[in-house]
Amino acid sequence: MTEAAVPASRVAIALLHHPVYDKNRQVVTTAVTNLDIHDIARAAKTFGMFRYYVVTPVAEQQALAERIRAHWIEGWGAAYNPRRREALALLRVVDGLEAAIADMTGSFAVAPRIVVTGARGRSGCIDAARLREHLEEETRPTLLLFGTGWGLTEEVFDGADLILEPIRGSDTYNHLSVRAAVAIYLDRLFGSR
Amino acid sequence: MTEAAVPASRVAIALLHHPVYDKNRQVVTTAVTNLDIHDIARAAKTFGMFRYYVVTPVAEQQALAERIRAHWIEGWGAAYNPRRREALALLRVVDGLEAAIADMTGSFAVAPRIVVTGARGRSGCIDAARLREHLEEETRPTLLLFGTGWGLTEEVFDGADLILEPIRGSDTYNHLSVRAAVAIYLDRLFGSR
Repeated sequence: MTEAAVPASRVAIALLHHPVYDKNRQVVTTAVTNLDIHDIARAAKTFGMFRYYVVTPVAEQQALAERIRAHWIEGWGAAYNPRRREALALLRVVDGLEAAIADMTGSFAVAPRIVVTGARGRSGCIDAARLREHLEEETRPTLLLFGTGWGLTEEVFDGADLILEPIRGSDTYNHLSVRAAVAIYLDRLFGSR
Repeated sequence: MTEAAVPASRVAIALLHHPVYDKNRQVVTTAVTNLDIHDIARAAKTFGMFRYYVVTPVAEQQALAERIRAHWIEGWGAAYNPRRREALALLRVVDGLEAAIADMTGSFAVAPRIVVTGARGRSGCIDAARLREHLEEETRPTLLLFGTGWGLTEEVFDGADLILEPIRGSDTYNHLSVRAAVAIYLDRLFGSR
């Protein structure tokens, strides 16, 4: 069975480090991690996506993310591992969701559709197969939001155009890492089968 | 569209730190990483798998993996995050592929089918949809092998019963992290759609 891949070139990911919940459902800002930057950039590149926004309001954390990017784009890492360079070229470090939306709007001359993902089921979700159809049929750019910590706040969900169904395995356990969840959603939306 | 999940309770993952290639195609032993242990255990638990074998011949690396396991199963981490405990309960640290095979053979009273994955295309691969059918129709246990570093050696491929097709996105770039590749394969094999 082979199904043509959906073009992902109008679709971007935003990984939000704020506003997200912590374990006790307090709204916090989580730390940027090296591996979230690398793994998600590699997945975004694999599926041919437009950009990967790392979103944090903390200046020091933005600087850390920029240093990682510079190391692999311009620094010693670029020659050591050109494949990593290609992936990290998709990275944009921004201070808030609005900046990611503004960047996409500037690039496509139209505001992106905002799609939120989360581990918890909600009413009115659509599944990845349905979103895949939307992406095949429409030219509107799309921004997929993923949360760190214990997930995106209700406010972010309220502001979204669409909510993607949680990933379900064969168990009631649904505690995938955000890196794994991104990989699975991208494969469902854009993978060749 | 909803498709029933495939039972994964007879299927295990082995993450091999040896024998794998390095960047220059030398056979090496890579280091165990904390995040490979956590991310893959969480994915294995999400999809209801039998076990997750971390394979390394190096005693110090086995001890490191065991310490991580003990922290989350018996130590401070077990109370802090019970969800992590459930995932890490699947972990078994073994010194070689043979030990993983022996453990499965002992548990199921029949040797597992060995399925190898890799980023490079080869002749005679089967796709995940076909393997999913096999897993639905047969009761034989299955061990899915994943390589660290620059991938499993030819010898490991030669000894396998089946080779799974590489994951393809919408681009020629295929440099997913092993954590992302595991997540995608498990979703293709066992995910509810």
